[in-house]
Amino acid sequence: MPVYYEDVEVGDVETHGDYEVTREEILSFAERYDPQWFHTDPDRAAEESPYGGVIASGWHTAAMTMRLLVEGTLAEAATVGAKGVDELRWPEPVRPGDTLRIENEVLEKVPERPERGLIRARTRTYNGDDEAVFSMIGNVMYLRRGDD
Amino acid sequence: MPVYYEDVEVGDVETHGDYEVTREEILSFAERYDPQWFHTDPDRAAEESPYGGVIASGWHTAAMTMRLLVEGTLAEAATVGAKGVDELRWPEPVRPGDTLRIENEVLEKVPERPERGLIRARTRTYNGDDEAVFSMIGNVMYLRRGDD
Repeated sequence: MPVYYEDVEVGDVETHGDYEVTREEILSFAERYDPQWFHTDPDRAAEESPYGGVIASGWHTAAMTMRLLVEGTLAEAATVGAKGVDELRWPEPVRPGDTLRIENEVLEKVPERPERGLIRARTRTYNGDDEAVFSMIGNVMYLRRGDD
Repeated sequence: MPVYYEDVEVGDVETHGDYEVTREEILSFAERYDPQWFHTDPDRAAEESPYGGVIASGWHTAAMTMRLLVEGTLAEAATVGAKGVDELRWPEPVRPGDTLRIENEVLEKVPERPERGLIRARTRTYNGDDEAVFSMIGNVMYLRRGDD
């Protein structure tokens, strides 16, 4: 059963996981999309980086979060994509060996058009020590049933 | 020569490119991180999607933008990563065959700490038809020379 705009309630909270972060995936994403040394060079990162070792690209963390969202909250959602994201933050680094999970909370519904509405939801990503490593407010377009 | 906080001026504008977007890369990124049908299923997307065909995951567009930033504006920058991003938008979809370039404009400098400062810059990504397909305001931490 698709989840339409009308099926989503402000205050809905869901958690989804887990995503196991490997060193290989951190390096391979960063080499392709974010080849800064603190993402791609474990030796230099161990010696020179304020993080004490290689950390995931922030865009990789966003992408892993999206994977958990798509498998979880959005799995049955009747969406046609997102308009954008606000207040995207990376409060703590993501490291090899971390296990990530997400919490998604619906903040606001905006009817917008007869055929679709906007769902504003805050997604927070946590590591195995319950530290928030990522957060954002997404603006996702949901189709409306049209029967109300 | 590393580019420190002191070397960046409000109003600086740079453009960098190009990035050729292939169908293979759109599908492969989406299968891994954003497996929604309008990113992964060209046949269904051609028939059912409002976009008329498969489009890149918004996180893929962000990642390709980051690649252009890292090769361009950030290539010599003395940064230790970003705190976050505001006002991230995807005004138009990215499609197979698109050629992307970025424009980066420095909006604000915040001294923050003796050893580092924050550079707020707007990055816009354009396709070959000069349509903006992505924009964001990044908050990047630059090291300070410490000689001023």
